This record gives sequence, structure tokens and C-alpha cells, in this order.
Amino acid sequence: MTLVTITFDPARLKIEVAKGTNILKAAKEAGIAMRTECGGTGICGKCKVIVPRQKALSGISAVEKRHLSLHELNSGYRLACQAVPRQDVQVLIPLESRIGQRRILIHGVERRTKLNPLVRKLHVKLNKPTLSDPVPDYERLKSALLAVYNTDLVDIEYAILERLPDILRDADWDVTVTVWNMHRIIDIERGDTTHALFGFAVDIGTSKIVGHLVDLTTGKTASMGRAENPQLAYGADIITRIAFAMEDKENLQTLQKILLEAINRILAQVCREAKVDQHQVYETVVVGNTAMHHLCLGIQPKYTALSPYVPAVKKRLDISNRELGLNTKPESVVSFLPNIAGFVGADALADVLATGFHRLKKTSMLIDIGTNTEIFVGNGQDILTCSCASGPAFEGARIKHGMKAEVGAIERIHIKPDLEVGFKTIGNVKPTGLCGSAMIDAVAEMFKRGLIDSKGRFSQRLKTRRLKKTDKQTEFVIAWAKESATKKNIVMTQRDIGEIQLAKAAIFAGSSILMKIQNLNPKELEKVLVAGAFGNYINPTNARLIGLVPDVPIDKIEFVGNAAIEGAKMALLSMEMRKAAEQLSDEIRYVELAMRPEFGKELADALFIPHRDLKRFPSLRKTS
Amino acid sequence: MTLVTITFDPARLKIEVAKGTNILKAAKEAGIAMRTECGGTGICGKCKVIVPRQKALSGISAVEKRHLSLHELNSGYRLACQAVPRQDVQVLIPLESRIGQRRILIHGVERRTKLNPLVRKLHVKLNKPTLSDPVPDYERLKSALLAVYNTDLVDIEYAILERLPDILRDADWDVTVTVWNMHRIIDIERGDTTHALFGFAVDIGTSKIVGHLVDLTTGKTASMGRAENPQLAYGADIITRIAFAMEDKENLQTLQKILLEAINRILAQVCREAKVDQHQVYETVVVGNTAMHHLCLGIQPKYTALSPYVPAVKKRLDISNRELGLNTKPESVVSFLPNIAGFVGADALADVLATGFHRLKKTSMLIDIGTNTEIFVGNGQDILTCSCASGPAFEGARIKHGMKAEVGAIERIHIKPDLEVGFKTIGNVKPTGLCGSAMIDAVAEMFKRGLIDSKGRFSQRLKTRRLKKTDKQTEFVIAWAKESATKKNIVMTQRDIGEIQLAKAAIFAGSSILMKIQNLNPKELEKVLVAGAFGNYINPTNARLIGLVPDVPIDKIEFVGNAAIEGAKMALLSMEMRKAAEQLSDEIRYVELAMRPEFGKELADALFIPHRDLKRFPSLRKTS
Repeated sequence: MTLVTITFDPARLKIEVAKGTNILKAAKEAGIAMRTECGGTGICGKCKVIVPRQKALSGISAVEKRHLSLHELNSGYRLACQAVPRQDVQVLIPLESRIGQRRILIHGVERRTKLNPLVRKLHVKLNKPTLSDPVPDYERLKSALLAVYNTDLVDIEYAILERLPDILRDADWDVTVTVWNMHRIIDIERGDTTHALFGFAVDIGTSKIVGHLVDLTTGKTASMGRAENPQLAYGADIITRIAFAMEDKENLQTLQKILLEAINRILAQVCREAKVDQHQVYETVVVGNTAMHHLCLGIQPKYTALSPYVPAVKKRLDISNRELGLNTKPESVVSFLPNIAGFVGADALADVLATGFHRLKKTSMLIDIGTNTEIFVGNGQDILTCSCASGPAFEGARIKHGMKAEVGAIERIHIKPDLEVGFKTIGNVKPTGLCGSAMIDAVAEMFKRGLIDSKGRFSQRLKTRRLKKTDKQTEFVIAWAKESATKKNIVMTQRDIGEIQLAKAAIFAGSSILMKIQNLNPKELEKVLVAGAFGNYINPTNARLIGLVPDVPIDKIEFVGNAAIEGAKMALLSMEMRKAAEQLSDEIRYVELAMRPEFGKELADALFIPHRDLKRFPSLRKTS
Repeated sequence: MTLVTITFDPARLKIEVAKGTNILKAAKEAGIAMRTECGGTGICGKCKVIVPRQKALSGISAVEKRHLSLHELNSGYRLACQAVPRQDVQVLIPLESRIGQRRILIHGVERRTKLNPLVRKLHVKLNKPTLSDPVPDYERLKSALLAVYNTDLVDIEYAILERLPDILRDADWDVTVTVWNMHRIIDIERGDTTHALFGFAVDIGTSKIVGHLVDLTTGKTASMGRAENPQLAYGADIITRIAFAMEDKENLQTLQKILLEAINRILAQVCREAKVDQHQVYETVVVGNTAMHHLCLGIQPKYTALSPYVPAVKKRLDISNRELGLNTKPESVVSFLPNIAGFVGADALADVLATGFHRLKKTSMLIDIGTNTEIFVGNGQDILTCSCASGPAFEGARIKHGMKAEVGAIERIHIKPDLEVGFKTIGNVKPTGLCGSAMIDAVAEMFKRGLIDSKGRFSQRLKTRRLKKTDKQTEFVIAWAKESATKKNIVMTQRDIGEIQLAKAAIFAGSSILMKIQNLNPKELEKVLVAGAFGNYINPTNARLIGLVPDVPIDKIEFVGNAAIEGAKMALLSMEMRKAAEQLSDEIRYVELAMRPEFGKELADALFIPHRDLKRFPSLRKTS
């Protein structure tokens, strides 16, 4: 059998498949979730990919001509279900065709989850009642389940009880009972339906919502979906949305409603794709930051945004879906994992779960970088956490040519000794802007080449045509207008550098304070785990060079991508994980940075590149 | 102070009050619940009473002239809030003005209930959160309640959680928390509202619904209401209604809907009367027979009516009112007390609770007579129960001149040695028909005088103008046309006697079988408690003479009226009673009479008056 190697970008995932395999099948084998609504039959036209070397592929089919515009065909677009590689080939999956990115690094730290979901399906055959055995229906079922499965029921959903007599008799006393948390009946079906048991994990981000459909009988992810958070229309940042919700009760209800609708759309998509009835979804586990948690539940989030930043609740909430209104089974449970504090939500807790941080023997650090960055320092014994307002710079906001890590974003930058710039764009297309990882590279490389000093100011001394003075400020050209998709120079301005300094300083100051409380030296850190959706290919040397992470050996720094959805899935799959989450919510100690008098000085010192106090960066001497 | 004595009929309750007290106030002092919607201000005109001796009262007021028709005034009707007795007087409270009859006898057997309701109001003041104490709202509340009241909350109603942040701050952290069963928050109010805590007890009878509003801070009944079961429109008996519900799902929903509406009407009335906001009602306890239980919950009752007569469920159900839709607080709980079997419902269980039957040291019998009669035999150690189809004869149905125990019903009958008849009518008005107690008297007295033989057949030998032969059968005239309100003779027919024989035989056979299983002789019975709403003044000697109850000394027979509502109230007031109900539901052993081969013979023998086997009625020799 002849094999060909396909390299999938931007995940950089290589797979060998038999020659003749189409790209869609190859992607599935590689574990990449690619959008398709027709299952690869050529009907939907959703599985678009970009292949720069067209001659490595089979010819363009009639199906592709129908679905793709001339412009797309000229730009290298193909349908993955139609295109068959003839030789080794590089395939780019553009954002619109991706459903959640494969987390390459997460698997390195993910703990295997023992399959033990809270919802279980129990198949049972009952004896028919007789005059000498007139035990009522519910009690008959209860004692059979106790006898066969040792499940001591105490409850049954009222809606199920209402239908119980008819269901049992229609099924001739041969039924499958769905039990939640081993004590409450949430469904009864005729015959043996134990094979159809699904769960739904949702990570509500401020800008993106990710949902994974999970087969609870195998633990495998059946399909994945994502959508923009529709609340973006009411403000890109959380504070704007909270201000809107504060205005009146109706606004709050609107924010909840559109969020639930978006989750329902993802649910519909993942169920359609996996050919699963939405009513076979018996439990949903939701994570998100505390504000998203409140908004999804319709709880007034105002007080999480005002000092002293107090959430309404932190404990795990198991809400009956009848009260929430997802399109899963009405009697299903929607379990909101617990929060830790007003600015450390269930998503950060899910990071801890996913990375197994809470089971590490040696003290480590976990940083989830976002507009608010959550930091954990500790080990299996004791964990401290804090949150710092690092701003949206790494996500592209407030940066002149900043953008999200999408096709067209420069994701890597290298500045040569002659101050010329090499860069790599997601999708290998002409660049549109810079994503977070490129910003880190840019600042680090400019610092390395002396283009900026430790205060982030552009050099007055170095001469290069890339350093340009405009009316307002100095900027450094990363890509020339002729190279770019926008036909304009793509630059880093003096103000952009300042934004990056502010962001990294906040993060560094937070982590310094946690380490100080724990009496830790960076040398003692076993690992520095970095989570967040601001780009997949951060250069750890550069991240350390600008002082985003403490000065630890490069091999201790691991990027774990967006781990929250993985943590949510682990909780969905395992009662023990669910309990661990509760315990962590209780035990992780929250540090309020606003209460630390030294925070101001730490922040000011960390604005320097890498830091005002170079003794904190002994490695710098080796690299420079 | 001059006193006058008022005798309230039909309760036969005497009370001395200061001269000048109006009848309504006197009734209240006597503990009689009389209908009034205006609280005695003369506005509603609902507190109608009948006073035969008008000259014992103050003159007819303008208010009375406005509310009462000329016909009513001529018939002795007055308004209780207007009429003031000048001297000792007899006052009849007609059915339309009564709200539940005072249970004279129940108090003799009722066990005092220690006040310990499942809903509690806990007043608590919280510390305001600060940056150094940023504990979330729910967790703050939880730990305060744990500290002050030792209540370990595990749950909060979602609707309350949604509002929690605003409530706490609006109340400046000084709130009253309503907790159900010491673990779930169902309300939070600002300030101290511990005084406003009410419960609602409901007894759903096949024909009448009774509701009592109870102040859970004192244990006192605040007001009482009753209404006809609107399902009567769909069939006087349960089987007809079940047949209707079986036809389609919509019919079942209709029966549930009109029942809940009727309960809501009673609720509105009792709350209006006691000036209580319906949202201050935090728990409702419901009892009823198993079919009413199912219909109220919207559960298909079909299988309770078909052999082997299996209910859907017997255990206690605590339903969130949001799922049921009473007009009490949406987050309040509606607790359906447990059933025992298809034909032994929560109402019968409530009889046991109310009479303290389950705590009796010595073996006794409890009979709740209705269309289905439930019988209990046992003591605190072990109780057997059965149900027998005794038919609606004692409630007036299928009896030529039968009627309910309302004004105009003959309730007592005495036949003199000369075969002339003396009788007493409820309300001392001209008679309209015979209620259950009169039927028992009639059969017993006729038997005593030799008018009927032990087979219930009219004597061919005795000559009296009261024995009349019509085309179809022989009948005995109780009241002549000229004496009656209907201007027709009021009679007991041969067929009527047969119906009574059938009813009493079924009851006797059931009780005999339970005694046989327990190896009991009637002599060993400590008490025979008789419950049921078929008349308040049964003559125990006559009840025994016709063989309705076993042959025990008269002083062992007690009539306890409709005890079910009392049992429901006890469960409302006491966690221990609620638990006792569950235990009883589990432990009381149900005997299916259809499975007893001897039932047929027992029934046939018991058709005799008092019984085919006179050795079972040794007392007969003494009385005759």
C-alpha cells in the first residue's frame, strides 16, 4: 500500500494515509474536527480547505465547481471530501471549516479520566404486578433497580412520574431508566436503550463558545462545534456587557437569552453531525468565567464588577434544564462547575482539572492568559490563585494591527541581525495583521536587536528603513504594504509596545505576588503551564525574554491551549472529577491583588523588558 | 355582666357570651368557622344563620334587609354579624354558611402535635463583603445560617438565586430566609418577616374539597374553606371519572386543571378571610384517595381502577409548586402524603395520623366509611388494612330519599313500640330526605320493632299504616307528606334496606377478615373508631345493631368525623408526623380482599341483620 503524508495546518499535524484517501477522511483519522454537515457526500460544501500546491491533488471535481467560487478555486480552495492527495501535501484548514482546534499539547498533561458519568442508563425487566403483588409502579421500579444495580433511588422527575404507568405497560415492563447521580430518575424508555447516552460540554468564553458532544458510554468526543458569543453585539469586553445588564432586568434577560440560543445552535450542529437526537443528551456541563456564568444563569452580574467583586454564588449548580431551556432533554441536568472568585471562574478551574495541576507533586504555575489572566501557583497540597487585568492586547484589541489568531494573522516573527524581518502567516497567505504570539515575538526580537530598550522605547540610535516616524509616534514595519493583504504596512507602534508591556507586567506582577506568598523562587517551579486562546505557537524563549513568564528553563514552559473545554469534558465524564472541582473551589485560596500594597511597585518594575530587576532574569545573561 | 347561652346547631355546641355579643362573634369564640368575607362589617352578607325563635334576638337591621330576601326573613334567616341575642337562643348554621364542621369527637383522640414544620423562617444579619472578605453571596448566607441556626444548606431555588445579589443589598444584609426541610432556601425577604409563615392543608374528597390555612408560627388554624369537587361534572363516582380520563390525555389534563382551580379558589378564600398574602403560604400538604391523588398530579389513574389496582406511586411526593401551579408562592412545596394502596389513599393514612391509631398500645379498629370504606386493624406494632366497595348508600346515593347530611336531612329516627316514628332534622326544618345516620337508625329501629326480619324483609305480619305496598315494592313511611318539605312521604323502601345491607355487609366482611388474619376476637378490640362524612350523629347502638361495626361495648365506639384534614394539618405542622406518614405507608400491610377465598361467604353472612351467625353478636341478647 502506497502512503502519502498530509500535513494539516495550522495544527501542524502530520498523518500518513493510504493513497486514494480523500482529505476529509484523513482529517478524521488525524482526530481533526472539520465542519461537514453531509458527512462527506458532497452535498453541503462546508469542508473547505486551502491547498497551496494544487498539483499534489486530484483534479477539481464537478461537486467542487458547484460549491466553490472561481475566486476560491483560484485561491487554492478545495473541498476536503473531494480532493485526494496524489503525493505528500500541506493542507490548511481555514477558520470557517474548523470546529475547535485539536489541542496538541493538552494531551501531554491531561490526566486519563476514568469513565464514571453522573448520568447512567440502567436496563431492567420488572415483574408484572398481580393481585398478590400489587406494589405500585414507582416502588416496583425502585426495588428492581436496588436489586439489580444497587441504586437507591430517592427521587423521580415529576414529568416522568406522570407518564410512568403508561410507559411501563407500553414497554411490557422492559425498560431503560436514566438515573442522575445515582438517585434521581430523569428518563424512562422502552426496551434497552443503554447505547444512547450523550453529554454536552460547553465553554462559554467572552468572545467564543465551544461545545463538545460526548458519548458517555465510551467517553469519546462525538462532535465539536463553536460559535461567536452573540453578546459581542453588546460589548466586546465583559464590563460593557455588565453595564448593559445593570441598566434593567430586560437587558439581563436579553444577554441570557442570546447566549442560550447560541449554545442551542452549537448543540443542534453537533447533534446533527453525530446523528444524535438532542433528547439523548442527558447532561450538560458548563464552564465559563464568573460573569459568563452569571449571565448564562440570568443572575445579576453587577456585583462581580464592582469592588469587592463578589459573585452571587460559587458552588456547583445542578439546574434542571426545564428551568434553563436548552434543547437537550427537558429533564436533563445542566451542571455549572463551581467558580472560585469574582474574577476566577469555572473556566479557570477547568484548566486546573484538565492539566491535572491539582495533582502535581511539585509546585508549579498555571497561567490562563486572556483579558483577565488567572494565575495559579501551587501543587496537590495547596493552591493560590489571583486574577489580573491584563487587557485584550494579546487577543488583538487596542493594537494598531492586532487581530485574532485566524487565517491571515502573522503568528511568528524573526528579526535578523540586519534588522530585516521574517514572518509566518496562519494559512501561508498574505498577512492581514498580528496575533498575540507575533506580538510577543515582535517585542522580544526588537529588544534582542536593540530596536527597543528595556523601557520599550524605540532606539534613537539604530537606523533602518523599517523604523518610521509618523505624526504621532514611531512604528516598526513588520510587513510592507506590497507583502500584505491590506496593501498597507503592518506595523508595531510605540503605543502597541506599551500595551504589551502593560499586559505582561500585570501577569508577571500577579505571578510574583503569588510566588512571594508561597515563599517561592522561580527555580523551584517544576512547570509553567500557559493556557489561553491567543495563538497556538508562542515562542517560549521570547515569552520569557519579554518577562511574560518567570525565568525558568525553556523546557519547563508548556502551552496547553484552551484547556477549559477539556476540563469540562472530564467533569462530564467523571463523578470524581466533578467532586474534585467542588473541592478545588472550596480549597484554592484566592488572593485579591488590590489588597496587596506591593502590587503597584511590582507592576511598575515588571513594565521593564524583561524586568527592572535583572537579578530576576539570570538566564538573560546566557541568551544575550 | 349578664350572660346568654347560645346553642349552635347542628354542632350542638353551647357557649355563654356577654349579652350584647353578636352571633358571629359568639361563633368565633366557640371555635366555629363561619363563612364571612368582610370580617363581620355587614358588607358581604355571607354569615347567614337560621334562628327559629326570632323574639330572642335584636330586631332586623337595615343591613339584614339589604342582604336577605323576604322569603329568607320569613324562614328565620338572619345575619350573624347583625343579630344579637337578648336571651338564651338556639342558632342553626346552615350548610352554606359553614366552613368545615367543628369535629367534636376528633379532639378526644387527636394527639397533640409538637410544632415543628418543614418550612422555617430564619432571620439573619450578614456582614457586608469587603475586599478582604469577598465570600460570594450564597456562601456568605450559608455560613451565617450554619453559625446561627446550625442549618446546613445544600440547595437554593434557582429563581431565588437569580435575585439573591439584589435582595441582599436592597435589604442591607438583614434578611429572613425561608428554608424547606432545613436544607433548601425557598424564599428570601428583607428584614424580619418571621411572623408571616403559613401553610395550607387540603383534603381532596371525591365530592368535597376542604382546605385549612394554618399559621405555622403558632400551629393555629387561621381560616377554613370548602368547595364541591368540580370533577363531579364528569361523574359522581371515581370510576366514571377515571373512564373519562382514560379516553385521552386532554381529558386527564382537564380533570387536573379544574381540581387545581377549585383548590386555588379555596386558597383565595381562606387567605382573604385571614388577611394573608397567598405568597406567604410556603407549603401545602395534600391528602386524598389514591385516584384523587393521581388526578391532582395529572398521573394516569387508569391502572388503579383495573385489576390488580396498582397506583403509579405511593411514596410521599414533594413537588415544587412551580411544576403544579397553585397560587401559593411559586417556590413553595406541595407535599402529597403517601398512599398505601390503590384503594387506600393518603386520606385514610391521614385518619390514622389524626386519630393517633398508630400509637395505640392496644389493638383497635378504624373504619373510614365512604363509597370505598377503608378499614385498619392493629396497634402501634402492626397494622393491617383493606378497602371494601361499600357503595355510596350512606352518602345518600341509590337510596330513594337519600341525601347528604345537609339542612333538611333527617339525621335521627326513633320508632316507638306503637310503630309511630319520631325524627330529628338537621336545622329543625321540614325534612327533605334521609342522611346516612338516619338510614342506620331506620334499619335498626325497624329491626328492633320487628318491621323487618334478619334478612331485611318487611314483615307480613305487623299491621301499620306506615307500611305501604306500591306497584313495585313495600316501603315504610318515615315522614308523612304533610310533615315534609317535599310534600311527599319520605320512605325507606325494600330496595333501600337492601342497599344498606350490602354496604354494611361489605364493611363487616372486610373488618372480619382483618380480625381473622390477626387472630382477633371483637372482645379484644380496645376501640372502634369510625370516620367519614356521612353524618355526625350516628347512634352507636344502632350501628352495632345492624352489624355495621363489630359487637363491642358501646363506649368503645367513637365517631371521629372527617379526620383526614386533621391528619393533613398535623403533617403540615410536624416533621415527625410527616416521617410517621412515610413509615406508615411502608409498614401498614395491605390485604387484598379479592385474594381472600372466604370473602364471598363472609359477605353473604354479613348481609343478615346483624349477621347470619348470632354468636358474633352476643350483646344482641341483652338489648333485645
